[in-house]
Amino acid sequence: MVVVSSLRLPSLTSLFFASSRSTHRAPATLFRRQQPYLAAARFSAQSAASSSLPETTEELAPANQKKSSNSNKVNQDRVITPRSQDFNAWYLDVIANAELADYGPVRGTMVIRPYGYAIWEAIQDYLNVKFKETGHSNMYFPQFIPYSFIEKEASHVEGFSPELAVVTIGGGKELEEKLVVRPTSETIVNHMFTQWIHSYRDLPLLINQWANVTRWEMRTKPFVRTLEFLWQEGHTAHATPEEAEEEALKMIDVYTKFAYEEAAIPVVVGRKSREETFAGAVRTYTIEAMMGDRKALQAGTSHNLGQNFSRAFETQFTDENGQRQHVWQTSWAVSTRFVGGIIMTHGDDAGLMLPPKLAPVQVVIVPIWKKDDEKAGVLNAASSVKEILHSAGVKVKLDDSDMRTPGWKFNFWEMKGVPIRIEIGPRDVASGSVVISRRDVPGKQGKVFGISMEPTTLVGYVKDKLDEIQASLLAKATSFRDSHSRFQFPFPSNWLLPRRSDKYEARVKEETGATIRCFPFEQPAGTKTCLMTGQPADEVAIFAKSY
Amino acid sequence: MVVVSSLRLPSLTSLFFASSRSTHRAPATLFRRQQPYLAAARFSAQSAASSSLPETTEELAPANQKKSSNSNKVNQDRVITPRSQDFNAWYLDVIANAELADYGPVRGTMVIRPYGYAIWEAIQDYLNVKFKETGHSNMYFPQFIPYSFIEKEASHVEGFSPELAVVTIGGGKELEEKLVVRPTSETIVNHMFTQWIHSYRDLPLLINQWANVTRWEMRTKPFVRTLEFLWQEGHTAHATPEEAEEEALKMIDVYTKFAYEEAAIPVVVGRKSREETFAGAVRTYTIEAMMGDRKALQAGTSHNLGQNFSRAFETQFTDENGQRQHVWQTSWAVSTRFVGGIIMTHGDDAGLMLPPKLAPVQVVIVPIWKKDDEKAGVLNAASSVKEILHSAGVKVKLDDSDMRTPGWKFNFWEMKGVPIRIEIGPRDVASGSVVISRRDVPGKQGKVFGISMEPTTLVGYVKDKLDEIQASLLAKATSFRDSHSRFQFPFPSNWLLPRRSDKYEARVKEETGATIRCFPFEQPAGTKTCLMTGQPADEVAIFAKSY
Repeated sequence: MVVVSSLRLPSLTSLFFASSRSTHRAPATLFRRQQPYLAAARFSAQSAASSSLPETTEELAPANQKKSSNSNKVNQDRVITPRSQDFNAWYLDVIANAELADYGPVRGTMVIRPYGYAIWEAIQDYLNVKFKETGHSNMYFPQFIPYSFIEKEASHVEGFSPELAVVTIGGGKELEEKLVVRPTSETIVNHMFTQWIHSYRDLPLLINQWANVTRWEMRTKPFVRTLEFLWQEGHTAHATPEEAEEEALKMIDVYTKFAYEEAAIPVVVGRKSREETFAGAVRTYTIEAMMGDRKALQAGTSHNLGQNFSRAFETQFTDENGQRQHVWQTSWAVSTRFVGGIIMTHGDDAGLMLPPKLAPVQVVIVPIWKKDDEKAGVLNAASSVKEILHSAGVKVKLDDSDMRTPGWKFNFWEMKGVPIRIEIGPRDVASGSVVISRRDVPGKQGKVFGISMEPTTLVGYVKDKLDEIQASLLAKATSFRDSHSRFQFPFPSNWLLPRRSDKYEARVKEETGATIRCFPFEQPAGTKTCLMTGQPADEVAIFAKSY
Repeated sequence: MVVVSSLRLPSLTSLFFASSRSTHRAPATLFRRQQPYLAAARFSAQSAASSSLPETTEELAPANQKKSSNSNKVNQDRVITPRSQDFNAWYLDVIANAELADYGPVRGTMVIRPYGYAIWEAIQDYLNVKFKETGHSNMYFPQFIPYSFIEKEASHVEGFSPELAVVTIGGGKELEEKLVVRPTSETIVNHMFTQWIHSYRDLPLLINQWANVTRWEMRTKPFVRTLEFLWQEGHTAHATPEEAEEEALKMIDVYTKFAYEEAAIPVVVGRKSREETFAGAVRTYTIEAMMGDRKALQAGTSHNLGQNFSRAFETQFTDENGQRQHVWQTSWAVSTRFVGGIIMTHGDDAGLMLPPKLAPVQVVIVPIWKKDDEKAGVLNAASSVKEILHSAGVKVKLDDSDMRTPGWKFNFWEMKGVPIRIEIGPRDVASGSVVISRRDVPGKQGKVFGISMEPTTLVGYVKDKLDEIQASLLAKATSFRDSHSRFQFPFPSNWLLPRRSDKYEARVKEETGATIRCFPFEQPAGTKTCLMTGQPADEVAIFAKSY
């Protein structure tokens, strides 16, 4: 992610990294301008940057998967491409070796394996509570949407029609009306809201659903962009524009807190440019994260839909004065893409590095023995340590397999990103203590000997360390983000106004591959000057190449 | 559900109720014999029984929904068809008025509204814990399955091909290979298992997914049979047939305990006849519940798949002796259909009646005041009672709306099936006590005055009552089931053997509309004689008309 200060346009080119098309929920505007997007893609393909390799699932299977496909032994040779050498290959290797996901049989689809799914479950658990605390109820809408619905909101159809999966046959017969497999649910939600909302007393209507969605993407990448993905989509209806705006801001705030406090990802929260606004929204708020290759990942969005869908679907209510009005709406979503963001924010050459709050396994215990007569004592102690931590609410795993060496296990669980490793050998048993290693501090520096097995001491120590690691990951990612951002790029906010053209934004994109990720809520102090015109500017924009 | 004893076939006809086609996960065999099924449907349409009305969503919208569709005020006239008058109309009225679900825009689809979804969430919460306790991990498979996969297992394709939804267009282009929207996931699961399973050390492989599935059903009914529904599907692979059998039995046992202990539904657990076995399974175990109209509902199934899918997909492992073998598998599922089962087991003319353990709201507090100066005191006491119960882990709702009368609220929450109502009026405030009413005991009989607001007393009383209601619902349903079952129908178990024909089972179905629901695990003592042949029989079968 790059925030540029007082630079002339031509020199920008060198600052940016390989571009790919915008975002998971793919604003309509991208599709309006197919050519510029293709140009950007060509640009990146021509550059020497490794991350500009085509990211179709067919072309870039993880190294390990290719190697082991005909082998009886998977997970044996865990050779991960170094991150610095080829970020994209590293990413795919980590996903394969940490057993997060695998390719589905249909191009661009993904099987989320138990370890990857457990991260998604941790995300769900946190957000689900927050959604309910903020008054939302879960429910479920059908995934089949009549094709005619999609066509009702003009920019929505423009945005989504190129990426639809369409059911034309049901029960062996050609269907009279084709059905769209939901790419998002605003249309069917409004169809139902129109039946449920009658008076101001029915408002606000605040709902959420956890669901799969389908978008026929050409360039796919596990977690980041797949044909089918999992997400939550919140949908709300309000009696006033102020309430809708407040809701849209409230939910982007929930996402922001989640990113910082749970995922340890220092996102930049802000408003999208008109070009990048959701297909059908008045305003889109976003959280943008900087990945380890300095590209931006849109990690969550919240849309103020205004009355666009309520007018298209005639979703009206009778207000307190007896007048019929169209409702004001929002929608907001976070998807399994977030798992990709966690991988690409914290991972290193040894593999995944998980923030303790989202880690399916927070502590792994590796017992170590050489002689047979040591085994029982070591395993006994290891089980007792496991029980102590488990009772204290720590997610702990004891790897007592006979089939692997301790060294193999160290590498394996490091690759899986487990925040803390506890080693217990015969000498530790004798002294009633354990060795504790931090995943985020490699080698001897991260290793502490002689931590007592006494429950209170051990639990206190482990919980403190987990907190420390959580904070440390955030600090490290924040420092990375800041050291790779250049403040500040004075950009005219009135680019967002319809009376002005979007040509400057488009020109930057064409020449550099970077797009406006957002106008951040937190603006730098001082006078801002427009880079392009030299005129005073209201707002700073953040530009970056993005996933 | 009818268990028949020593009756001649012709006389059976009068014992049975309207038939509809078999079950949610629709065994293949039903489709092999399209004609008999249609005959059964005609039979029911010709009969005078009200429950035999066509159940297409188009034809049978709930009374209330039809009435209120153009009204500004929903939920005003909560006229529910009496259960005894028309069971099906009653069912649809309850769903509409209790706001459990609504029809989606596409024929046969359903929108699960927050109150209905909360029941499903309670089911998920319980089962998810049990699945993990029994060693299963959640994961996620793509819903798009190449058409060729479905064709690989002979009886599977026979069973499912007539009810597939097929995607033929993606990203604006005709697809080279059509994609099936998953009706169930055995095929894609096996495709992936084949890549993950190499040696006996990879076994058992125990996974589960929570997902939506699509089956192009012709006759639909909310929750019971919809084009798209939500479920969990477990899939496991084992090194021996014994382990697979043990797993299939273990999971039907999890379902059975859930039905009895959480849903208060006294299911009969047993083995399906060959005709009713899942398309691709060697053996299907089932839990069968008797609904309020005495029809059976298949509420959950667990399949021993043998090596059928592993042979079709070449899912092999190297055993401890170095030999390649096909894995032995199971799959098992419970769906949103279970919500329909809860409605039809416990509901009465006043509406829904929810077992406390699955109720989204266990206690509703209705404050009552007449004069304005009473209001503050009553609401104060009501809030404090709410807080007391909430802190004790009771799911409690305070209905303090100004817009409805207490009488209206009583009816509304009764209709919603809330197990306990607490009334608080000025006199209760003065005496520091509340009035408590049980949903399952109508009128004065279920009403107790003067329960102290003192936290320990109140919480103890409410929790005891919730337990009592839970037990009472199960007892009532058990007694209903037993009083409407006729023991025992001597049926030859060797009907299941391929060397014998299935003609007797088919003949009963043709003449009566009833099918074998299962051969129950718990068999009556004593000699069994085959009804058809007079020969000694091994097992008793349970026959019933079913949903």
